[in-house]
Amino acid sequence: MRAYDIIKKKRDGLALSDEEIRAFIEGYVSGEIADYQAAALCMAIYFRGMDVRETTALTLAVRDSGDRLDFSRIHGIRVDKHSTGGVGDKTSLVVTPIVASLGVKVAKMSGRGLGHTGGTIDKLEAIPGFCTSLSTEDFERIVNEVGIAIVGQSRNLAPADKKLYALRDVTATVDSMPLIASSIMGKKLAADDDCIVLDVKTGSGSFMKTLEDSKKLAQLMVDIGKRAGKKMLSLITDMDRPLGYAIGNTLEVIEAIDVLCGRGPEDLTDICIALASDMLALTGEHGDRDACEVKVRDAIASGRALDTLARMVKAQGGDDTVIYHPEAFARATHEYTVKAPCDGYIVAVDTEGYGITSLLLGAGRNTMEDKIDYTAGIMLRAKTGDFVRAGDPIATLCTCDESRFAVAEQRLLASTVIGDEKPEERPLIFARVE
Amino acid sequence: MRAYDIIKKKRDGLALSDEEIRAFIEGYVSGEIADYQAAALCMAIYFRGMDVRETTALTLAVRDSGDRLDFSRIHGIRVDKHSTGGVGDKTSLVVTPIVASLGVKVAKMSGRGLGHTGGTIDKLEAIPGFCTSLSTEDFERIVNEVGIAIVGQSRNLAPADKKLYALRDVTATVDSMPLIASSIMGKKLAADDDCIVLDVKTGSGSFMKTLEDSKKLAQLMVDIGKRAGKKMLSLITDMDRPLGYAIGNTLEVIEAIDVLCGRGPEDLTDICIALASDMLALTGEHGDRDACEVKVRDAIASGRALDTLARMVKAQGGDDTVIYHPEAFARATHEYTVKAPCDGYIVAVDTEGYGITSLLLGAGRNTMEDKIDYTAGIMLRAKTGDFVRAGDPIATLCTCDESRFAVAEQRLLASTVIGDEKPEERPLIFARVE
Repeated sequence: MRAYDIIKKKRDGLALSDEEIRAFIEGYVSGEIADYQAAALCMAIYFRGMDVRETTALTLAVRDSGDRLDFSRIHGIRVDKHSTGGVGDKTSLVVTPIVASLGVKVAKMSGRGLGHTGGTIDKLEAIPGFCTSLSTEDFERIVNEVGIAIVGQSRNLAPADKKLYALRDVTATVDSMPLIASSIMGKKLAADDDCIVLDVKTGSGSFMKTLEDSKKLAQLMVDIGKRAGKKMLSLITDMDRPLGYAIGNTLEVIEAIDVLCGRGPEDLTDICIALASDMLALTGEHGDRDACEVKVRDAIASGRALDTLARMVKAQGGDDTVIYHPEAFARATHEYTVKAPCDGYIVAVDTEGYGITSLLLGAGRNTMEDKIDYTAGIMLRAKTGDFVRAGDPIATLCTCDESRFAVAEQRLLASTVIGDEKPEERPLIFARVE
Repeated sequence: MRAYDIIKKKRDGLALSDEEIRAFIEGYVSGEIADYQAAALCMAIYFRGMDVRETTALTLAVRDSGDRLDFSRIHGIRVDKHSTGGVGDKTSLVVTPIVASLGVKVAKMSGRGLGHTGGTIDKLEAIPGFCTSLSTEDFERIVNEVGIAIVGQSRNLAPADKKLYALRDVTATVDSMPLIASSIMGKKLAADDDCIVLDVKTGSGSFMKTLEDSKKLAQLMVDIGKRAGKKMLSLITDMDRPLGYAIGNTLEVIEAIDVLCGRGPEDLTDICIALASDMLALTGEHGDRDACEVKVRDAIASGRALDTLARMVKAQGGDDTVIYHPEAFARATHEYTVKAPCDGYIVAVDTEGYGITSLLLGAGRNTMEDKIDYTAGIMLRAKTGDFVRAGDPIATLCTCDESRFAVAEQRLLASTVIGDEKPEERPLIFARVE
């Protein structure tokens, strides 16, 4: 099986066999197949696509290129949730303790933020002492005892994806549905979960800018997961505006705690309840979707979900007092209020621009080596649809380095459209794909 | 101008600017742009194509990546002829001395054979003592005195093409019209000719398998040449059967001499007269096409063309006695006659298979380092359309290594279709593109 023949076959619009796809990925990871051949294949896939069977084969080859987790020593049904990445998206911090408090096991590997979207691991590391790297034994023990543990991805998770993604990033082959789906699912399937709920974002702050594409991506990932033997469900949710009001690591943890305390912003709370209810219902062991929603609301109201978060934080070496007293978090040394330049409605925001503003304040990395300012970020004071008068605050910028305010303010204002007409309300959840 | 942006622009179906194309090629040759980015761009070009303006810009960037010849010290109008490569195609050896004997200058750089097609330089080196590497001064002097000199390509001819071609060869991006055209024309335009006649082959032994594609390629190359200020013309000629009866270096030189002596096979003679007449007419200094054909036929009949070949051979250090006495050429030590396995017409031959048979006999190289057996090759005894009886000879295989006969015979027979119905005659020349 020559790399050349595989490239040519895809170039000519034919479906590749499972064996061809696996041989190519194995050869690429081992270095037998060169970057330039993988680049040519990615571009051919960009133009010719892949059917579900091919994309599943690619996903499984990516999964099998590195370490796979074995959860056989974890008792009970295991559920995971994955978001395609958004700005201000702290839902994982909310929904995983909720479902864990209801008896479902969450043994989660999460990623760090890179680019304009945040990562759950960075957010957790904003909690003093929290350790995102555990031995297998500790990880399993904590999941069994607390119901939930969240760790960073193993270094050897899906190395084929690391290599392919770096290549796609410099060859204009990122925007390909089968390549995106196999990248996400190849990593997800390396964990040993029973159920996976996907949150596919749509809109300006996400991978997929149109609803149609988001639905296609969601359906493809759901189909891949099912073929790999998982129970699957995906929501399509809005990313044309940030979720909640907080963007930045510490700020987002505090807002997540607010939701678990029943005082979170409405949009974020609604999405979290929807996701948690779907996660619970998908297990098939907690009644129908309505029954599950009742349980989820009760887990919040009773404080059990918050307690579960606190227990996980403590088990992973963190200081659980901040969970019950978020005012104890270290805060940014400097704050700056961005004011509306004119009267009007906030008609639209470029969510990606808001994510970049947060980066500019120090909340993220440009390279994997950069240090994060956990306190940095944005507290929105007005959101899409709100009416503001000139001089009204629209956001508070937070950072420990005040030299960052000027460019950050500029970027935030450039990402905010103020106009005369109140924009139409968009739904928070566009579709459910299963 | 980032490589990424250029790849993405072509991927999205937009035309690249001349500056973008030049920057990419310069960056690729200098090593700033990686192989994998060039592979992605080639695949994007494969799918999206390039218009004539873009292809011309690519051609000129390829041309300018290496040495360019300066023919200002060569007196008179300079004409070149280029074939896209065929099996048994010895036309250059015939037509260049014809037009040189008529007062047109031929200052020709030729290539070596690689793959199943032969190369003029290899054929010339079958002549004892013939030197295909000359100083610029000797090259110019011989062209001015004899009217013709033929040398190998400079090492630094179009390095962008060398690098790109090697890449395309392993990434399934060879079969792209703009990439083929810019590769051929980028090298051709590095020479300093006034007129170029192209011989674009069509059929089983050529790059372009269909007449329609051959015409498109010819038109594209003619347009590129014109935009670069050249007088251009292209013939589309048949490569569904080998030209003449000889395949292999010495055998082809002898057959070329036969044509110049007026005793060559009809198909080869006809194509050579057509090409030479068109070359002469294209200069605009020798009357119309009919007048040119009269002159060409006279150059053969009078022996002037053969004399010109002999003078060039002598001027380039070769033994000119073989030109007048081809029986003096060293011949293969072993011959083997391939016989028809059954009665019938030769319905079709796979010309590429015949070229490979010749390679298997030792007439060509698998790598640039291989040594050639100049005496090796095939003398056809029957061609497409001929009727043979079982046991009749269809070809004589020639080589100095008799261990090669078995696979060569097998390949030749597998490339020969014998059937009951006499095939329709195909024209030798399908079209003229200008």
